[in-house]
Amino acid sequence: MELQDRKEIVENIRYLLQEKDVPKLKNILVDTHPADLADIIRDMEDHEQDEIFRYLEPETASEVVLEFDDVTREQLIKKIDMARLSEIVDEMDSDDAADLVATLPDHVAETVLSQIDKQDRVEVEKLLIHEEDTAGGIMALEFVAVYDDQTVDDAIQEIRQKSQEVEQVYHVYAIDRSGRLVGVVPLKKLILSKPKNLIKDVMTTEVQSVTVEKDQEYVANLVSKYDLVSVPVVDSMNRLVGRITIDDIVDVLQEEANEDIRRMAGITDEEVLQETSSFRISKNRLPWLVIAFIGELVSAYIMSRFNASLKQIVTLTFFVPVIMAMGGNSGIQASTIVVRSIALDEGGASNRWEMLFREFRVALLNGFIFGLLIFLIIYIWLHQIMFGFVVSFALMFVIINSVIVGSIVPVTLHKLKFDPAIATGPFITTSNDIFGLLIYFSLAAVYFKWLQ
Amino acid sequence: MELQDRKEIVENIRYLLQEKDVPKLKNILVDTHPADLADIIRDMEDHEQDEIFRYLEPETASEVVLEFDDVTREQLIKKIDMARLSEIVDEMDSDDAADLVATLPDHVAETVLSQIDKQDRVEVEKLLIHEEDTAGGIMALEFVAVYDDQTVDDAIQEIRQKSQEVEQVYHVYAIDRSGRLVGVVPLKKLILSKPKNLIKDVMTTEVQSVTVEKDQEYVANLVSKYDLVSVPVVDSMNRLVGRITIDDIVDVLQEEANEDIRRMAGITDEEVLQETSSFRISKNRLPWLVIAFIGELVSAYIMSRFNASLKQIVTLTFFVPVIMAMGGNSGIQASTIVVRSIALDEGGASNRWEMLFREFRVALLNGFIFGLLIFLIIYIWLHQIMFGFVVSFALMFVIINSVIVGSIVPVTLHKLKFDPAIATGPFITTSNDIFGLLIYFSLAAVYFKWLQ
Repeated sequence: MELQDRKEIVENIRYLLQEKDVPKLKNILVDTHPADLADIIRDMEDHEQDEIFRYLEPETASEVVLEFDDVTREQLIKKIDMARLSEIVDEMDSDDAADLVATLPDHVAETVLSQIDKQDRVEVEKLLIHEEDTAGGIMALEFVAVYDDQTVDDAIQEIRQKSQEVEQVYHVYAIDRSGRLVGVVPLKKLILSKPKNLIKDVMTTEVQSVTVEKDQEYVANLVSKYDLVSVPVVDSMNRLVGRITIDDIVDVLQEEANEDIRRMAGITDEEVLQETSSFRISKNRLPWLVIAFIGELVSAYIMSRFNASLKQIVTLTFFVPVIMAMGGNSGIQASTIVVRSIALDEGGASNRWEMLFREFRVALLNGFIFGLLIFLIIYIWLHQIMFGFVVSFALMFVIINSVIVGSIVPVTLHKLKFDPAIATGPFITTSNDIFGLLIYFSLAAVYFKWLQ
Repeated sequence: MELQDRKEIVENIRYLLQEKDVPKLKNILVDTHPADLADIIRDMEDHEQDEIFRYLEPETASEVVLEFDDVTREQLIKKIDMARLSEIVDEMDSDDAADLVATLPDHVAETVLSQIDKQDRVEVEKLLIHEEDTAGGIMALEFVAVYDDQTVDDAIQEIRQKSQEVEQVYHVYAIDRSGRLVGVVPLKKLILSKPKNLIKDVMTTEVQSVTVEKDQEYVANLVSKYDLVSVPVVDSMNRLVGRITIDDIVDVLQEEANEDIRRMAGITDEEVLQETSSFRISKNRLPWLVIAFIGELVSAYIMSRFNASLKQIVTLTFFVPVIMAMGGNSGIQASTIVVRSIALDEGGASNRWEMLFREFRVALLNGFIFGLLIFLIIYIWLHQIMFGFVVSFALMFVIINSVIVGSIVPVTLHKLKFDPAIATGPFITTSNDIFGLLIYFSLAAVYFKWLQ
């Protein structure tokens, strides 16, 4: 829906709220896609939000709640009474219900769980066991499966029976009599097969599945690599326990990319635009700023300890920004390439050395280019050949050093099972500033000593 | 496939190549998923690559080619003869064929097009008209559509007939007798309906479609918002002309996130790990480095023009790194949040001002915190109250200025139809360094003047 249409609907809804024309209002709400309703409700005032939300059917309300950003959701849920909230949770797929319940305060979660349908409660509790960012944490328990010795017609009957519960069906999974996943039948194949055919005769046995404990990033890479639209999830005995659909994978991909980008920028946690507390946002951004702050005080200390004539120091400091910025930017480029290639699993571990070697060659080349440039500039500007050499060598070394740090740190973090993305951004920049100034001032110290 | 398994297969293939055991080799190749084959081939030596590729069936070869990164693909295609290449292109879906042909040198493209099936050629040429990053550029011409006055049974016959050509079918599109898109029938619905039912009675009329000229990022946001698995593409008259499947959308999402991340790091073009030419990589990274270099020379010039006693200048320069780094990091945080919220279309245009205001408040708060900290440190370290105030105010102003620049620039770029992502990274950092030093040195100049 275009922004213009949305604004019109918002105006309409406002008018109908004032006129208290509930039937017309409900008509609009029914005709609008829940994803758009979420945007519309977010654009309204607090008291309007509550009122509109009250007029939604439980099923629509459940879909709208899932589309909200965290902050809007939290605010609205606080104001809903338990009975209504339970009704809404009851309408959700098991995976969404579990995700929502996980965000509720303990006593609210307990009350809601006690009020929903018993089978749903059992399912939600089963899902809550899994870590949030694993296959088990994002899978749903709604799927269609048949035994491999059943027929195509049986599968169609099974789809019919589960039609309400499982909204999106693109594949029917085939299991053996012990519940182990043995194959998959795309609906297209099902439609084109004879009703009497046995599932084992029409199924594909090469089925990409994941175990419950696999990281969600692994699942997303699998889906993206093999172009899947859903992935069956199995337990350690290969028994089918759940299904992950592509829409959840799309969310994971966006979440992971956002996380990487956020970490590159030195922002600790997810930050939604609807967050209005400056203190909470500030808290989210402070940690890396504090690290950078401390690091740069070390830089200040290094500069203060430097021994030379004041005039020499002053000329030296003109080039501190160039040294810092060129080191910082080159390091960020290298670390970004390395972090992304790890995240997207480009090249196996065998290629890591090649990657580092490649970065080193680029650093040599770029270091040489800017070393030469700065030499020429100092020669033209200050007419100093030897000092030009010092700055030029320093810049070259600093670029090479930053690139080496920028590419080795993420690989090492990855080996140590940390997220390599934390290496990009403030961390690399700050350590490169310190190393850079040390290199620059040390070279200068040698030169000034030699002058005396 | 796990890395370990892949290494084993690579060893096996190497052995069979040496033994010239072609039948066994072909067996392995047939049993391995094309996406894995692409990884395996990439891991091998050049001459091995050529040989293995020759043993692939045209259909497998076509899928493997699509899985390659740009560099590996380019290298391999150069060595394939035209007849074989045409055979491979002939096996592809229209959208993939068009993408591949678009990357070939003109004379090769012409020869290939003249050698493939005539209908395929017409389709590829039809697709090549569209811009690469629009809905028309990523759509395929393979889909299943029926008239809305046909029956469910007709639709099933149509699926059967197109079964070879259209591999993945999840929906059948309904068109009227003028070819206009009027509805969609999920396969699940088709299976559960009676064969004699009319399509118009079982179809959903609320169908999310896009026009050919829409940007691929728009399509990706639509898919992600409404949880779609495929999107029909229509022309300006609402006539159905193509279909975009979720696997292409997943590629778009990854591509767009990569592009943003790359731009944040100041890397001009896409850079694949298989690129081995240091010169090409360097060329890709130099532009932003050059801009940063020039910017920092301006910083050097500002510092050199500063008029004060040498001793004063030296103390002043200790804090240059802190000023630069804190401004840079705060600016990057702000611009990243703004750029991402524009890219993900969080909040309408109405919220842009709120966003800027929010960033301003955070800048005030963080500026105050670090201003206070640096004052305390200077007081403890250098026992200077007034100089502490100067640095403290400078740091506060620099942080606030960086955040304002960092949040206003992307919004402005977006308004002017540039990609806001170019604003993050070196651009913001460099301009903030210049502004930052100007602010810092100007405040210091006022203070030193007052001292005299």
